[in-house]
Amino acid sequence: MPHRLEHEINHIIEKIEEDYGRGRDIDTIENFAHPQRDCIIKILNQIRNMIFPGYYNNENYRTYTVKNKLTMQLEDVLYYLSRQIAIVLKYVPEHAGKDEEALIVEGETVSLKFLNQLTKIRELIQTDLQAAYDGDPAAFNKPEIIFSYPGLYAIMVNRIAHELYLLGVPLIPRIMTEYAHTVTGIDIHPGATLGKYFCIDHGTGIVVGETAVIGDHVKMYQGVTIGALSTRGGQKLHGKKRHPTIEDHVTIYAGASILGGDTVIGHDSVIGGNAFITSSIPSHTKVSIKTQELEYKQGDRDATEMVQSQEW
Amino acid sequence: MPHRLEHEINHIIEKIEEDYGRGRDIDTIENFAHPQRDCIIKILNQIRNMIFPGYYNNENYRTYTVKNKLTMQLEDVLYYLSRQIAIVLKYVPEHAGKDEEALIVEGETVSLKFLNQLTKIRELIQTDLQAAYDGDPAAFNKPEIIFSYPGLYAIMVNRIAHELYLLGVPLIPRIMTEYAHTVTGIDIHPGATLGKYFCIDHGTGIVVGETAVIGDHVKMYQGVTIGALSTRGGQKLHGKKRHPTIEDHVTIYAGASILGGDTVIGHDSVIGGNAFITSSIPSHTKVSIKTQELEYKQGDRDATEMVQSQEW
Amino acid sequence: MPHRLEHEINHIIEKIEEDYGRGRDIDTIENFAHPQRDCIIKILNQIRNMIFPGYYNNENYRTYTVKNKLTMQLEDVLYYLSRQIAIVLKYVPEHAGKDEEALIVEGETVSLKFLNQLTKIRELIQTDLQAAYDGDPAAFNKPEIIFSYPGLYAIMVNRIAHELYLLGVPLIPRIMTEYAHTVTGIDIHPGATLGKYFCIDHGTGIVVGETAVIGDHVKMYQGVTIGALSTRGGQKLHGKKRHPTIEDHVTIYAGASILGGDTVIGHDSVIGGNAFITSSIPSHTKVSIKTQELEYKQGDRDATEMVQSQEW
Repeated sequence: MPHRLEHEINHIIEKIEEDYGRGRDIDTIENFAHPQRDCIIKILNQIRNMIFPGYYNNENYRTYTVKNKLTMQLEDVLYYLSRQIAIVLKYVPEHAGKDEEALIVEGETVSLKFLNQLTKIRELIQTDLQAAYDGDPAAFNKPEIIFSYPGLYAIMVNRIAHELYLLGVPLIPRIMTEYAHTVTGIDIHPGATLGKYFCIDHGTGIVVGETAVIGDHVKMYQGVTIGALSTRGGQKLHGKKRHPTIEDHVTIYAGASILGGDTVIGHDSVIGGNAFITSSIPSHTKVSIKTQELEYKQGDRDATEMVQSQEW
Repeated sequence: MPHRLEHEINHIIEKIEEDYGRGRDIDTIENFAHPQRDCIIKILNQIRNMIFPGYYNNENYRTYTVKNKLTMQLEDVLYYLSRQIAIVLKYVPEHAGKDEEALIVEGETVSLKFLNQLTKIRELIQTDLQAAYDGDPAAFNKPEIIFSYPGLYAIMVNRIAHELYLLGVPLIPRIMTEYAHTVTGIDIHPGATLGKYFCIDHGTGIVVGETAVIGDHVKMYQGVTIGALSTRGGQKLHGKKRHPTIEDHVTIYAGASILGGDTVIGHDSVIGGNAFITSSIPSHTKVSIKTQELEYKQGDRDATEMVQSQEW
Repeated sequence: MPHRLEHEINHIIEKIEEDYGRGRDIDTIENFAHPQRDCIIKILNQIRNMIFPGYYNNENYRTYTVKNKLTMQLEDVLYYLSRQIAIVLKYVPEHAGKDEEALIVEGETVSLKFLNQLTKIRELIQTDLQAAYDGDPAAFNKPEIIFSYPGLYAIMVNRIAHELYLLGVPLIPRIMTEYAHTVTGIDIHPGATLGKYFCIDHGTGIVVGETAVIGDHVKMYQGVTIGALSTRGGQKLHGKKRHPTIEDHVTIYAGASILGGDTVIGHDSVIGGNAFITSSIPSHTKVSIKTQELEYKQGDRDATEMVQSQEW
């Protein structure tokens, strides 16, 4: 580093160091106080590998070593997940005073409960895969869906995160689903309860809130919101049912918003594209917005200005 | 691993191992039966490096080694792409019985046909770059567009994947475009046919379906859907034209949906933001939705509740 | 490589090599002419680590080495950022003729000015963190927001990139915000000016244009556009105010579009979901779209066809 900058660099370092001492949330510097995002994403992908044993990391010969492979993966997940859980349990009042060792034991107990659910999770994911295949004429075969469909990935991550959420693990489930949000554009809170044969098509822009309940055989397109109706309660609303219930065999087309904790979409109903629903809909009902009135103007496209347009 | 957990761990392993034996799609464990997603993404990026020789990996001096560099890149792509194609050709009935060696030879033949199209692809991408620059007042220069615009990236990936799609390669093209979807939020099926000078601005939420045909000089904003009109045919619709045709010099503003395999948007037309179009539009036509009726309420924002709102 | 392919491979290489010689934008091959995207993303993440010293890379014990850690990070950022800035300054007419050494000195000067703003940036991010916590009943605690909320990440990247933008650095700020766009689906141009306590919820599909000005305590949901009103000016509009001004304490619900450089949303106003606003709104006003007319059809879902629907 050129000597001429030394004074100025030192000045900036002192300024930032002083800034770190101001005691705000962003200034906290404690060792191992927080979970490691990278480690959690690694755990998540290792779990995915266990869910689809033949699709990722399958360089081993089946009858010979599938059990050894599985053992290695499972011990790996157990070890890291237990330690990440031990870290986040410190945030929970009932565990706050415990020592490191006790927290790791608790982390192991929770991790084993989670791993015990893995066959149940696999069972559900097989139904999601079937639903994606049955509903999409563009699907070539099921491996294509496993390797490339963002909907199936987002649903899988919710199913994993939701089990950890039910076991009372904070932060880690949300880090997992927000990672899936990053990868897919689909934002499903780990608290959301998803039924069997859940199918998401395209998916970008979907939001499903914490207390939403989704039935079996539900299909959802891009840009759908299953959200809360208003507004300014903030942290006071924590824990209340704020999001809709969608019953079995409901299809929700692109851009529809369904809002409110008391809103129930009855089974076998269809919600049309861009519909904005804030109260319950009976079963076997098709809801669609009245066809838009469109205005047409003929002529040279350079002669007039479009109002309904936007650009950077 | 602490001894006290041994029993429980073994129990879970046996449970999962048994689960792997149930013969469902997710249970398939065959060696090298499926393509490797990571390898396909590496191939895709190597092809990008060849398309923009001066923008990525350009540590070599031009007149001296540009050919050596190119040779290395091309042999690399040929080697890995041939082997990935050999894997996915097993999914295609006509190649199902062939041995490994014959499939790799077929993979090489297809890869060479693809690589022969690279100059054509480059020609098209230069037109897309020009269209992005001409249409965006926020663009500083063309390298900015190459390095940072998601629209250009998504279009480039479609152009690469589309050539492989036309050559009858399954899975790999879709893995490529879904990777671009992950990176950009833009979901263009590899089957979609894109004209010259195609420009996507912002792009998040765009969906362009498998059988869509897009003309030259088309511009599209975020949230646009070029989709299928309904519905429940599923796999029975495979291969049918289900998505619209957009003719030359059409601009489609944010959030518009254009649906249906018989829908044609005539050349030099403009589709306004949020318009929902399910039938053809003649050429030289501006279509916009009638201005929304808005309701205004004055007063203290804390006194009343908004209905048209949502939140977690 | 099998000998039988040699001829064809050489033919393709020659064809592409010839194609590189055509002098188009995509053919430019100059050494170190362009910034390196990967390096810029590394710099961005190192800056994030300095902003949240306790949340990323915090394996060091505080009182002992926090200063050494910081020194290392800061010198790292200074070194790489200076060199990347030196590269992009060549694009700016006033620096075009300078030699390498002079450009690096200029790069160091600009980088130090930027690093001097880091405590100001941290101050603002603490307000954004507080706003996210106060407004979201689903937030467990502030570390959850730091580790997983895409809104906070996108805002942080804009605050970093905006300082570089104000210092006249081309390309690098946009590469940073488009990286955040990739990660979050939130597309905020580095030119946009954001006030304190800015809160984005969910965020996928948000677009905020280059000349937008956002006040303090503004909250914005997924799919909101703060964009330009039309259209075909292209590069001629560069530098003009094309995007709205949003005053303090405004809430904008999902899917709303606010367009135009002269549009001002007055303080303490609320813009309802999906509203399309192209002119100014006074302060203390709630704007909502008139409730949609919905059509309901009862009966067997298989008997009729939905029109308002779409699919691949």
